Amino acid sequence: MKALVLEEKGKLSLRDFDIPGTLGPRDVRIKTHTVGICGSDVHYYTHGKIGHFVVNAPMVLGHEASGTVIGVGAEVTHLKPGDRVCMEPGIPDPTSRASKLGIYNVDPAVTFWATPPIHGCLTPEVIHPAAFTYKLPDSVSFAEGAMVEPFAIGMQAALRARIQPGDVAVVTGAGPIGMMVALAALAGGCARVVVADLAQPKLDIIGAYDGIECVNIRNRPLVEAVAEVTDGWGADIVFECSGAAPAILGLPALARPGGAIVLVGMPVDPVPVDIVGLQAKELRIETVFRYANVYDRAIALIASGKVDLKPLISATLPFEDSIAAFDRAVEARETDVKLQIVMPE
Amino acid sequence: MKALVLEEKGKLSLRDFDIPGTLGPRDVRIKTHTVGICGSDVHYYTHGKIGHFVVNAPMVLGHEASGTVIGVGAEVTHLKPGDRVCMEPGIPDPTSRASKLGIYNVDPAVTFWATPPIHGCLTPEVIHPAAFTYKLPDSVSFAEGAMVEPFAIGMQAALRARIQPGDVAVVTGAGPIGMMVALAALAGGCARVVVADLAQPKLDIIGAYDGIECVNIRNRPLVEAVAEVTDGWGADIVFECSGAAPAILGLPALARPGGAIVLVGMPVDPVPVDIVGLQAKELRIETVFRYANVYDRAIALIASGKVDLKPLISATLPFEDSIAAFDRAVEARETDVKLQIVMPE
Amino acid sequence: MKALVLEEKGKLSLRDFDIPGTLGPRDVRIKTHTVGICGSDVHYYTHGKIGHFVVNAPMVLGHEASGTVIGVGAEVTHLKPGDRVCMEPGIPDPTSRASKLGIYNVDPAVTFWATPPIHGCLTPEVIHPAAFTYKLPDSVSFAEGAMVEPFAIGMQAALRARIQPGDVAVVTGAGPIGMMVALAALAGGCARVVVADLAQPKLDIIGAYDGIECVNIRNRPLVEAVAEVTDGWGADIVFECSGAAPAILGLPALARPGGAIVLVGMPVDPVPVDIVGLQAKELRIETVFRYANVYDRAIALIASGKVDLKPLISATLPFEDSIAAFDRAVEARETDVKLQIVMPE
Amino acid sequence: MKALVLEEKGKLSLRDFDIPGTLGPRDVRIKTHTVGICGSDVHYYTHGKIGHFVVNAPMVLGHEASGTVIGVGAEVTHLKPGDRVCMEPGIPDPTSRASKLGIYNVDPAVTFWATPPIHGCLTPEVIHPAAFTYKLPDSVSFAEGAMVEPFAIGMQAALRARIQPGDVAVVTGAGPIGMMVALAALAGGCARVVVADLAQPKLDIIGAYDGIECVNIRNRPLVEAVAEVTDGWGADIVFECSGAAPAILGLPALARPGGAIVLVGMPVDPVPVDIVGLQAKELRIETVFRYANVYDRAIALIASGKVDLKPLISATLPFEDSIAAFDRAVEARETDVKLQIVMPE
Repeated sequence: MKALVLEEKGKLSLRDFDIPGTLGPRDVRIKTHTVGICGSDVHYYTHGKIGHFVVNAPMVLGHEASGTVIGVGAEVTHLKPGDRVCMEPGIPDPTSRASKLGIYNVDPAVTFWATPPIHGCLTPEVIHPAAFTYKLPDSVSFAEGAMVEPFAIGMQAALRARIQPGDVAVVTGAGPIGMMVALAALAGGCARVVVADLAQPKLDIIGAYDGIECVNIRNRPLVEAVAEVTDGWGADIVFECSGAAPAILGLPALARPGGAIVLVGMPVDPVPVDIVGLQAKELRIETVFRYANVYDRAIALIASGKVDLKPLISATLPFEDSIAAFDRAVEARETDVKLQIVMPE
Repeated sequence: MKALVLEEKGKLSLRDFDIPGTLGPRDVRIKTHTVGICGSDVHYYTHGKIGHFVVNAPMVLGHEASGTVIGVGAEVTHLKPGDRVCMEPGIPDPTSRASKLGIYNVDPAVTFWATPPIHGCLTPEVIHPAAFTYKLPDSVSFAEGAMVEPFAIGMQAALRARIQPGDVAVVTGAGPIGMMVALAALAGGCARVVVADLAQPKLDIIGAYDGIECVNIRNRPLVEAVAEVTDGWGADIVFECSGAAPAILGLPALARPGGAIVLVGMPVDPVPVDIVGLQAKELRIETVFRYANVYDRAIALIASGKVDLKPLISATLPFEDSIAAFDRAVEARETDVKLQIVMPE
Repeated sequence: MKALVLEEKGKLSLRDFDIPGTLGPRDVRIKTHTVGICGSDVHYYTHGKIGHFVVNAPMVLGHEASGTVIGVGAEVTHLKPGDRVCMEPGIPDPTSRASKLGIYNVDPAVTFWATPPIHGCLTPEVIHPAAFTYKLPDSVSFAEGAMVEPFAIGMQAALRARIQPGDVAVVTGAGPIGMMVALAALAGGCARVVVADLAQPKLDIIGAYDGIECVNIRNRPLVEAVAEVTDGWGADIVFECSGAAPAILGLPALARPGGAIVLVGMPVDPVPVDIVGLQAKELRIETVFRYANVYDRAIALIASGKVDLKPLISATLPFEDSIAAFDRAVEARETDVKLQIVMPE
Repeated sequence: MKALVLEEKGKLSLRDFDIPGTLGPRDVRIKTHTVGICGSDVHYYTHGKIGHFVVNAPMVLGHEASGTVIGVGAEVTHLKPGDRVCMEPGIPDPTSRASKLGIYNVDPAVTFWATPPIHGCLTPEVIHPAAFTYKLPDSVSFAEGAMVEPFAIGMQAALRARIQPGDVAVVTGAGPIGMMVALAALAGGCARVVVADLAQPKLDIIGAYDGIECVNIRNRPLVEAVAEVTDGWGADIVFECSGAAPAILGLPALARPGGAIVLVGMPVDPVPVDIVGLQAKELRIETVFRYANVYDRAIALIASGKVDLKPLISATLPFEDSIAAFDRAVEARETDVKLQIVMPE
């Protein structure tokens, strides 16, 4: 089968590639339909590694996928051929200590699509555990199905935040993940979400949603805007999605006494944090790592129409143009949120 | 000043009545604008008591109110004359043990408008503590401002539920409170809310909202409908708003393993509960009593447009027709959700 | 191998019995050492069923066990032959929806030792999944190891209660489970635990622990005793462990405003509950079903000396006297808390 | 009346000093008995300020106090002359937004004893709101009563941690606050608490308690010790009580996946934090600021004998030797935990 292979740092091929594997009794075989390009795919392409995950051998990219079930293992009961599905790319050891606790995302044994040495799903067929494969309702398209993975990160942030109905939230950073977080927070119970960034085109995209207010921090200090929105009380929740050191240092000033901060952005190195500032308001800080137990609820919100991710799909390209799609992703255009690749029929 | 006075069980007068009181340093004086009629007002009218609260002397009715500040005490800083406001009718001892814990609603010392022997607000002017008086944004009308109180009960239920984004909720009972709960749950993060009742006109009103699905239990067992919506897994949260014994007995079948039940409806006498059924799914059960710390968040959701309560205002009557308004409320028409009284200019 | 077999209601045999099964790659083989007798074992013996679980074929009893690993599957890494262990008797489908959420105890697919048609462990050797087998520190004896299972129920109740350090708790019912709950609550952060029962011998046993106060409700109304202990405020947490209807009806009076009730006792039929009473204090009610993720923490508390279960082991009998041991358990002597059976060397 | 007055940085006087104030209807008048010396008192003495709190005028020191009620205001019901009490030194605006939420410790309007410009309690008589004055049971001495304030900080940390029964905790830093935290964590449900410091005398003091294990990080890396205690899994909770930059940078390595960190120590300036390290385990971070709603529970734990603070009282000096007491406190002897001053009869 053809696959989009990262041969080594900077070199992609679209070529025949066999991902080893057999259909186990609790697995499904899926014909992939749509695969989104994630920043981590791009990073492996441009840098050949993320942290201590290094691409030492050719690896198939892609982990944001939807498709159709074309085969099921003997013990699979909740899926059948023909079902339209999306797939959770991280597979834990199901009886590890973390998995037993319900936090399988932090199981050290997790394997994850397109994270070395595990191959991804930019190939026409994949085998996947049925337990991590989710049926799409008729009202959710394949394109939306392939958006569930990035939206799941927003959902995880919204869950960790423990939003209370009517909260006011701030999101620092309007990259693709910041946008997902903003939409999850809004659907997840916030009354208002203020999104801050330097890039106006990004703010224009997310600001088009009802309930989202934007602040271009080139023009106005965020702390001032938040004070105005909250009558000087501060935001109930601040989602830090920029990973930028100045944003992180300024977090205490944005939150209300007793509020929460959710650290989503990932600064590569340790950054200065104003601990006394956090303490003076007795803030709670949550961190997120991928997601666990959110696919069902993400799909439910998309299916019910509470979350519309379609405006965030900036372009859809055919599988044969995958390399061009990745090269466009490398450009990081401010008007591109998500690029998706559609597999051949 | 004129007031709507419950002279005794079954007898209302619209007459001059002076509610004693002086403007303290932390109080505001408010010209009332709109006052909603609550089921408890009606119950005092028809029964002369609720539980151990007995009307032994003439009492002004009304506790769902909005108005305009016309005077402020010396220490009031966050309100000024001309501010449009709504008022929280229950006033606790602010340094009681419950209040210090933030659960001032269960402070045994609470006094509450139109709960004997405390007078209500169906009169042109009231004095109220500034700390329990909330400014209305320009986008929230007086009519909506007077809906904050009943909506606050829905908010309290939604808060106690600890909704997680994307939850599926069931509401048993589509009375005014059930409707408020359904809207709070939906705005508060649920993906879908299923409302069940016997009265089709009520279901037609609440079912007109996006995201709310209705089940007329005359036509279909609720447990079957919930199983269909949730693929047999059960609802994440069940809000019991009917107070009806059969509904309460059937709660365990509606919830998913590890789900939650929020008891909002108030059955007068003890009712049979299937404790082993609750245990078999290890359900959490929450109860609510009025509300605490929800007015800001209720107003924020109304102001942002996430919650639209206007369709639930069934009729608006002038103060001089208050008695007729109460008599209509006594009828309990299935097409009436909330009746409101507007004070003279 | 010999086993204690419940042939049918009322008939036990100690006879050769082969439990089918092979050592899978993630299993361990264990030589059983000590097995406690649980009320459910006794109930199957005397009634032949519990709820819809009916003994239709001979079944080996016993599910509270410790022993020594004598063989490990190919993929087992955290255990090795010679390790002293205790075993969690309920095995879920590890990738079920409930298990993924970390609440594997409410997975409908759970199989549980000595719950028809699953055989128990009153036999010299058992095969068990390594993930549900826990190493005992040197400081924890086999006898204590076999107490981990019943103590786990107390731990689950203590976890669901969400004890805050310094809470005052009440336990209604001083049966073996009530005692376990009292000890878990005390070790789990309560400052004081008040235990209530009618049977003085039971109260004498649990009252011998520091920090436990006893109320014989033949002599004194519990509500009065709790009021005295709490200056009229009420208990932070009430653990209902009697399953008795009057106790359940009286729960609201025992708790403080905003407190919690944990329903541990299992009344067979629906019982009347004072819902308005619960609401007036806005109480939270938790239920428990067996346990999940508590074995490690139960063992840690025993090993550190914070919980001493040895005084609750009333008698230890050899395997060959198993039937006599069960017949003594049927007597339900008020001075017997836990009877244990020791397997032959 | 005599008082210990900080005239200015570095200069203490024991002299007549009248703290203005009248007994309000909800106040009590207290004859002080014992007052502990806190690090913040000493810091004002040596530096003349803490953060933006600057001593610009003579100020009475002291905020850790117990005493006897000698007068009560007209509305005080729960206290009477002769009651032995301890006092919570921070008084919020009781109807502020934070206070209504139950988090009165982060009310910006709080006034706090011996925090400029508010006078402290090192004087024979003080007036204090009854709502923040707590009766001591007979079993709690005045000396212990004056320990409630510093122990309350440990309690606040234990509450924010949301300890689950049987947790393993680590405390970095064995200063007085670290010791309080360790004891609160242990009494609050932890099975084991590992305390780390460089100063062996401090470790010897806290290590004398059952259930506390000590690691001198001069001799052994803490991460190694924690790995051994937890079989490589990590601590459920890490309480950072040193405020030291290297300790803060190393926090992620000490916690288990999904664990919690409580930031108690206060580094003056922003310090580097390994955010990606926190995220990789999806850790929750809590901060604490003084305390709210913990005095009752702190007293309950002391009264029940679960917490014994007496070994932490290193010396007791008479009021007339207050200046000498402070000068000893400035020495910061490693064998001194808490110095207390006793007022004249």
